[in-house]
Amino acid sequence: MDSAMTELRGLPFTELGYATVDHHRALRQGAPEVILGEGKTVEQIEGISRELARTGQNVFITRLSADKAETLKAAFPEMHYNALGRTGTLLRTPIVADTAHSVALVSAGTSDLPVAEECAETLRVLGADVTRVYDVGVAGIHRLMSKRGVLDAASVVIVCAGMEGALASVVGGLVQVPVIAVPTSVGYGAAFQGLAALLGMLTSCASGIVVVNIDNGFGAGFAAHRLLRAMKSEKAG
Amino acid sequence: MDSAMTELRGLPFTELGYATVDHHRALRQGAPEVILGEGKTVEQIEGISRELARTGQNVFITRLSADKAETLKAAFPEMHYNALGRTGTLLRTPIVADTAHSVALVSAGTSDLPVAEECAETLRVLGADVTRVYDVGVAGIHRLMSKRGVLDAASVVIVCAGMEGALASVVGGLVQVPVIAVPTSVGYGAAFQGLAALLGMLTSCASGIVVVNIDNGFGAGFAAHRLLRAMKSEKAG
Amino acid sequence: MDSAMTELRGLPFTELGYATVDHHRALRQGAPEVILGEGKTVEQIEGISRELARTGQNVFITRLSADKAETLKAAFPEMHYNALGRTGTLLRTPIVADTAHSVALVSAGTSDLPVAEECAETLRVLGADVTRVYDVGVAGIHRLMSKRGVLDAASVVIVCAGMEGALASVVGGLVQVPVIAVPTSVGYGAAFQGLAALLGMLTSCASGIVVVNIDNGFGAGFAAHRLLRAMKSEKAG
Amino acid sequence: MDSAMTELRGLPFTELGYATVDHHRALRQGAPEVILGEGKTVEQIEGISRELARTGQNVFITRLSADKAETLKAAFPEMHYNALGRTGTLLRTPIVADTAHSVALVSAGTSDLPVAEECAETLRVLGADVTRVYDVGVAGIHRLMSKRGVLDAASVVIVCAGMEGALASVVGGLVQVPVIAVPTSVGYGAAFQGLAALLGMLTSCASGIVVVNIDNGFGAGFAAHRLLRAMKSEKAG
Amino acid sequence: MDSAMTELRGLPFTELGYATVDHHRALRQGAPEVILGEGKTVEQIEGISRELARTGQNVFITRLSADKAETLKAAFPEMHYNALGRTGTLLRTPIVADTAHSVALVSAGTSDLPVAEECAETLRVLGADVTRVYDVGVAGIHRLMSKRGVLDAASVVIVCAGMEGALASVVGGLVQVPVIAVPTSVGYGAAFQGLAALLGMLTSCASGIVVVNIDNGFGAGFAAHRLLRAMKSEKAG
Amino acid sequence: MDSAMTELRGLPFTELGYATVDHHRALRQGAPEVILGEGKTVEQIEGISRELARTGQNVFITRLSADKAETLKAAFPEMHYNALGRTGTLLRTPIVADTAHSVALVSAGTSDLPVAEECAETLRVLGADVTRVYDVGVAGIHRLMSKRGVLDAASVVIVCAGMEGALASVVGGLVQVPVIAVPTSVGYGAAFQGLAALLGMLTSCASGIVVVNIDNGFGAGFAAHRLLRAMKSEKAG
Amino acid sequence: MDSAMTELRGLPFTELGYATVDHHRALRQGAPEVILGEGKTVEQIEGISRELARTGQNVFITRLSADKAETLKAAFPEMHYNALGRTGTLLRTPIVADTAHSVALVSAGTSDLPVAEECAETLRVLGADVTRVYDVGVAGIHRLMSKRGVLDAASVVIVCAGMEGALASVVGGLVQVPVIAVPTSVGYGAAFQGLAALLGMLTSCASGIVVVNIDNGFGAGFAAHRLLRAMKSEKAG
Amino acid sequence: MDSAMTELRGLPFTELGYATVDHHRALRQGAPEVILGEGKTVEQIEGISRELARTGQNVFITRLSADKAETLKAAFPEMHYNALGRTGTLLRTPIVADTAHSVALVSAGTSDLPVAEECAETLRVLGADVTRVYDVGVAGIHRLMSKRGVLDAASVVIVCAGMEGALASVVGGLVQVPVIAVPTSVGYGAAFQGLAALLGMLTSCASGIVVVNIDNGFGAGFAAHRLLRAMKSEKAG
Repeated sequence: MDSAMTELRGLPFTELGYATVDHHRALRQGAPEVILGEGKTVEQIEGISRELARTGQNVFITRLSADKAETLKAAFPEMHYNALGRTGTLLRTPIVADTAHSVALVSAGTSDLPVAEECAETLRVLGADVTRVYDVGVAGIHRLMSKRGVLDAASVVIVCAGMEGALASVVGGLVQVPVIAVPTSVGYGAAFQGLAALLGMLTSCASGIVVVNIDNGFGAGFAAHRLLRAMKSEKAG
Repeated sequence: MDSAMTELRGLPFTELGYATVDHHRALRQGAPEVILGEGKTVEQIEGISRELARTGQNVFITRLSADKAETLKAAFPEMHYNALGRTGTLLRTPIVADTAHSVALVSAGTSDLPVAEECAETLRVLGADVTRVYDVGVAGIHRLMSKRGVLDAASVVIVCAGMEGALASVVGGLVQVPVIAVPTSVGYGAAFQGLAALLGMLTSCASGIVVVNIDNGFGAGFAAHRLLRAMKSEKAG
Repeated sequence: MDSAMTELRGLPFTELGYATVDHHRALRQGAPEVILGEGKTVEQIEGISRELARTGQNVFITRLSADKAETLKAAFPEMHYNALGRTGTLLRTPIVADTAHSVALVSAGTSDLPVAEECAETLRVLGADVTRVYDVGVAGIHRLMSKRGVLDAASVVIVCAGMEGALASVVGGLVQVPVIAVPTSVGYGAAFQGLAALLGMLTSCASGIVVVNIDNGFGAGFAAHRLLRAMKSEKAG
Repeated sequence: MDSAMTELRGLPFTELGYATVDHHRALRQGAPEVILGEGKTVEQIEGISRELARTGQNVFITRLSADKAETLKAAFPEMHYNALGRTGTLLRTPIVADTAHSVALVSAGTSDLPVAEECAETLRVLGADVTRVYDVGVAGIHRLMSKRGVLDAASVVIVCAGMEGALASVVGGLVQVPVIAVPTSVGYGAAFQGLAALLGMLTSCASGIVVVNIDNGFGAGFAAHRLLRAMKSEKAG
Repeated sequence: MDSAMTELRGLPFTELGYATVDHHRALRQGAPEVILGEGKTVEQIEGISRELARTGQNVFITRLSADKAETLKAAFPEMHYNALGRTGTLLRTPIVADTAHSVALVSAGTSDLPVAEECAETLRVLGADVTRVYDVGVAGIHRLMSKRGVLDAASVVIVCAGMEGALASVVGGLVQVPVIAVPTSVGYGAAFQGLAALLGMLTSCASGIVVVNIDNGFGAGFAAHRLLRAMKSEKAG
Repeated sequence: MDSAMTELRGLPFTELGYATVDHHRALRQGAPEVILGEGKTVEQIEGISRELARTGQNVFITRLSADKAETLKAAFPEMHYNALGRTGTLLRTPIVADTAHSVALVSAGTSDLPVAEECAETLRVLGADVTRVYDVGVAGIHRLMSKRGVLDAASVVIVCAGMEGALASVVGGLVQVPVIAVPTSVGYGAAFQGLAALLGMLTSCASGIVVVNIDNGFGAGFAAHRLLRAMKSEKAG
Repeated sequence: MDSAMTELRGLPFTELGYATVDHHRALRQGAPEVILGEGKTVEQIEGISRELARTGQNVFITRLSADKAETLKAAFPEMHYNALGRTGTLLRTPIVADTAHSVALVSAGTSDLPVAEECAETLRVLGADVTRVYDVGVAGIHRLMSKRGVLDAASVVIVCAGMEGALASVVGGLVQVPVIAVPTSVGYGAAFQGLAALLGMLTSCASGIVVVNIDNGFGAGFAAHRLLRAMKSEKAG
Repeated sequence: MDSAMTELRGLPFTELGYATVDHHRALRQGAPEVILGEGKTVEQIEGISRELARTGQNVFITRLSADKAETLKAAFPEMHYNALGRTGTLLRTPIVADTAHSVALVSAGTSDLPVAEECAETLRVLGADVTRVYDVGVAGIHRLMSKRGVLDAASVVIVCAGMEGALASVVGGLVQVPVIAVPTSVGYGAAFQGLAALLGMLTSCASGIVVVNIDNGFGAGFAAHRLLRAMKSEKAG
């Protein structure tokens, strides 16, 4: 147990009172600290961002509402805001994209785009190469079939779908690579804010599909990042 | 309102104490009285059957467990019992099948067969012509695609599927005829005894799919019967 | 399988980036592409509408809020907006109503009208003939009874009801034709935004009732369209 | 507050270790102590019964399984066991029925009878006069209509129904007297063990219907008893 | 069945297009038609009110928001609006209160008052005599105990409580008269908008408590009215 | 029973019509009457506060929105308002902090601070000594480990966490003192407004963790107060 | 962080393949390792018990079914089995009861006894002094009131109640000491296997009540143990 | 689209009536057809197995009860049955394990072993190298810490945990590689058959954790297989 404890000891962080900023995560997780914008005041977001940026880390903010983004832009004019995906990015270190692997980002309908774009931004910040395949729901399955080439070329496929989320099952049956399913809260009534899609993806008849939280485009992107890094180190190794 | 009331007045039924047997339903609904075997004692089932049979009506019993069926066979040796679909049939009037229309009965997996067979028996008793398309779940979509001919020839398609129930959405996007979806309780964990499939079918991205209760093969068959009779009267008219 | 694949091959669509517009659906489903207005920006709705209209297809938009409708009217002054049902219609091809069949559209209370009107507009755009029977809930069952004539003359009956949704069961027991039940989110407390009506309709004691999603007036209308087209082809055949 | 406290003080009970038997309830509630058989060992039921009987009170046991009943019969040969309603009754004081008021006990289907009979036994033990109206579900509404006379003559109506429970709404719209609705766990799938009926009855469109727990035939009977006693004291007064 | 049908035939109502106004309910239910304000436009409420008032009936509107009330006041300056209970009353026939019976209206906390006041107004319009016992939750049970006198004098007790709703059980154990429990949506988190109180009241350990929908002060008042009318006719009889 | 009744008798309270103010609670519970600001009008809050303050009691208001607080400040300029925790405090009697015991108040993330601060204010008003350990979620477990000293010195630990609430289990395994877990509504999708954290804390694999309602910072503080007072009396004793 | 890590390092455990037996817990938590019997084979239970007993620790097994207990008795003839509470105890070190503090263990009904007894055994093994107050549900509140003396003398009160769980609120309002509420799965229908009681206890109107999992008598006992130890060390200190 | 359709065309399968056996899946998914034993008769399982084995494919059966396994052993004496994981394996082609990558299979408690073993068997059949880390729940976090070496050496980590499932969050914060979380149905009461763990894992505060269905050890193994194959092809490429 000694080595485990030795590693944990001495991990750096900074206390801001309302937040304990983890400077070691970039190393530990291979990714910058990510700030969930929802539930934080704009002052808190600014403070954490400033602390991270101070130490040269890239900052990535999710669930950042348009009005909070506007306030932050006054503090960080160089911040990039993706209005559809509601993400803010502050680069201190340039991102080097891994073009050796491709992520196919598939969505069922136009209304799933906010989630898909949160995912796309996450992947971009984490250095992944993304190909978008949007609005190919199973009710018109020939649209999906015409994209087989993109799916087959991908190292990992992410599927964003609301309503019944059937797209994940169909894609899962078509490809051999890892499939990450993101249920979205698109739909009304018995969709129950994404519950129908969530349950559907968890019980998919296609084997080995994995699922993240409802509307969690960030989580799907980060999960793909874990995988791509493992693949990359394979190559390197 | 007079005519409405005139029709209602004088409708015949028999009181057995534990049941009020409706002799008019054969006329009113164009179908025999159906006995839900679950929740009734075998004595009650036998009593109601006897009363219906006495007046020359066909008797159809659903959710009839094997042991109750055995007891009933002593009373009605001519009863036909479908062990997989758990239905019992007592014919007093021969069934004339309507071969002009076909029902395509599609199921996602082998485990959905009890529900599909309950549906098939219901359709048979109600005089419909059924073509079975079994075990064609979307994880291997080429199996479904190879059956396009059967689907295209059908007047109505019934889809039985558990787990995520995605098959209903894919079928609904392929055909123009009415599609009746039956969620089944197949699956475990987040399938929640059919809830995942039910919600998935209700929120299907394919337009105009209709849904019946979980495991309600009988209901789907009866709904198809309502439609087929309307089509038949069209032809006749 | 060849013929199935041949049919799928070559199906046309247009990619707009945020949407993959399906030009074949008019043929495949016998109905125009329908745009779900909810969850789309007005720019996206306008773009899809323009692409559909460009190819001479009729456009039908559901869940179209009043303010989005106003913006769209600037782009398409000829658009018809139904404020109660929240639908927008852009006609490029005249609708020929099928007067040979009638749809009885029954609602339980005044608060169900937005759903019923969405359904009525859907039916109108799809060429069906609708008779409205509004505010005939079962607490004053004589109101429904006085409309028996309309119900008996219909080829299909659609029942929109919130609260406990009991109207569907009563209607289902009165008529022999197909009955499509639409649970509405009318009611409070234990109505749970339409869940009570949904469960009630799914477990109806009347045989062969089919159900669509909560508040899904469009879905019920489209399901009726599938039925009516099947009947119509009977007649033609 | 003095008088309130004075009343509470000195109320008698006996402690058996596993139970604190309330001898005052007969006075306080106008009814004997009722023993819920479920979740108690047969030894505990026997002990409580003996203590109650010792003081001359009538004993009423609900949810009494057949095998427990058999054991109890050895101890109390005079016990009356209703197998359908699963109730046991030990009389020490004769019951005087109140024939001035009638309770109409309505049930939707044969499968609701165990609940209805639990209610009927409860009413009998509490001295009420019951008229059974069984198997009159709304899918064949003429059966209910033919019983209008019984409903109109009743002082209170109890409606036991599973599945969607629509019968309560229809009855509630027909009569002016108090209506007590008992959802039963009859039905499968989306009936969710009585939840569909419970929600339906709670959200009934008929005004002033009151509801008890799922399968709680005893509770409905006791609630009616509270009503009838109030009426009786009126008459007396 | 003839007499039942004869009674139904000829019941009067007026069709307004969006509403089928039931003029017979005053007779059938012994109460004026009640308008649920929620989910209706103010024009619809005004139209229905005008039709009812035209025929000399009293009008009672529930769930009437303050802004709708203001608009209605322009049309009906004599309308009485209870802001706390959100009810509007238009009297055409004077109300004669039944002072022979008293309703004890008990609430657990100050936040339950909107529901309690909706109930109080309903009772007032239906001619009942109400005594309010407010803010006597079980956490300070001596406050309730000090009101034993009021409870003991009542012909019926209504208990409005949110959170865990325990007050209903305690009151139910104290009095012999009918107890109607109204769960309110007061509370947060695991109160789940009244679900905790609803389940608690349905499973109360006090025998014979009856329950209405969450926040349904009107329903509880109407249920009490059904009972009081029965008692009144007892006295008269 | 006499002594019990004697104690209850004579407990003082004041009736304000909308509220029954309990003057005895300070004695009975060892704490001032607490006003839940949510669901009360500002006039009601002011009235209750005035009555409590009149008798020299401290007043503590929870769930006090900023706009209500502003209005109250006009009436009570000395009121202390904690904007993050949404609490208002009116001191009439000085608080004497119990520095002999320490409460460690642990939170998982910055978004949990409103709940944690409600708890901190509650503890402060009740005379407890609080040490804050904020933003130490288990995804970076070394942050928590670095605070072992604070945890080990505490007499009781309160853990506020949303999302999956895992922090409570880890803390529960580290310390021997009582652990009170507060699930927060932080998180989206399958967090279901705190349900995920609530279920997680209730089923924690660490033995003897106790749980309060979602977002109930006040409840956790009060529970700790019950503990601390018991400890204090030990010491005193 | 060093000291924290130092403490963790070197904690002893034994790996059995199917279990990692924690020998340090006796020290760390002040309690023996507890074995949850449910979900383990009797061979696994025996193996873990043997390993614990080997090192002189006391063994406490919960959720131990009668047939597993019988098998274990062959291996450990000295094992004490509590059939009602389903617990097994193997003493290697004598238990010294802390008679300075008393736990009042209150239950609402006879059916709650298995949970209460699991709690009582847990307390006994952990050295606590227990006073049982059984079958004092709020429907007959005078029974509870007569036990005020026991409640007032206790250092902590544990309340086990099913159905609506109202007893916890009433007790919480009566005493100042810590109250631990245990919802039980007693009740049927809307009790939903303890959900009603769980929600009720979480939303109790009595301040500062804490809750454990449904039927978790062990958890409540262990929580009390955490508190009592803290009090004991107070005294010692 | 042509190439996509060309690929789909000609995919082989065999129809058995009750099953459509997919011979192409071995190629398409890189894995043998897997038979879900639950919900199938032993005759159906045997028939499908025989058809697969006939063509030289390996057969893997999950959820295979002990009694069905015994019957199958008569037909296939060479079948390997894992009683704990309830899986059956029929090898026709030898498995070549990929020792270049390791899967760390972590479980929280002994009761999670059936799920973990189903996963381990799945991985073994699919050629993965597994290291088991069992019974290291977070309540004794030093047990997990002592296994840091195994975790750090793994290419992918699978975490099986019931109750609150907190282990997944802690592991997710410790490692950089992909983490697949499997909620198990271990736990009682508010664990709700795995729902607590499922929600907890979906809302984990550790970024990029992916989740499969409750108790779905097979699904987690197959998902890992998708990952490992992608890595392997990297290396190969």
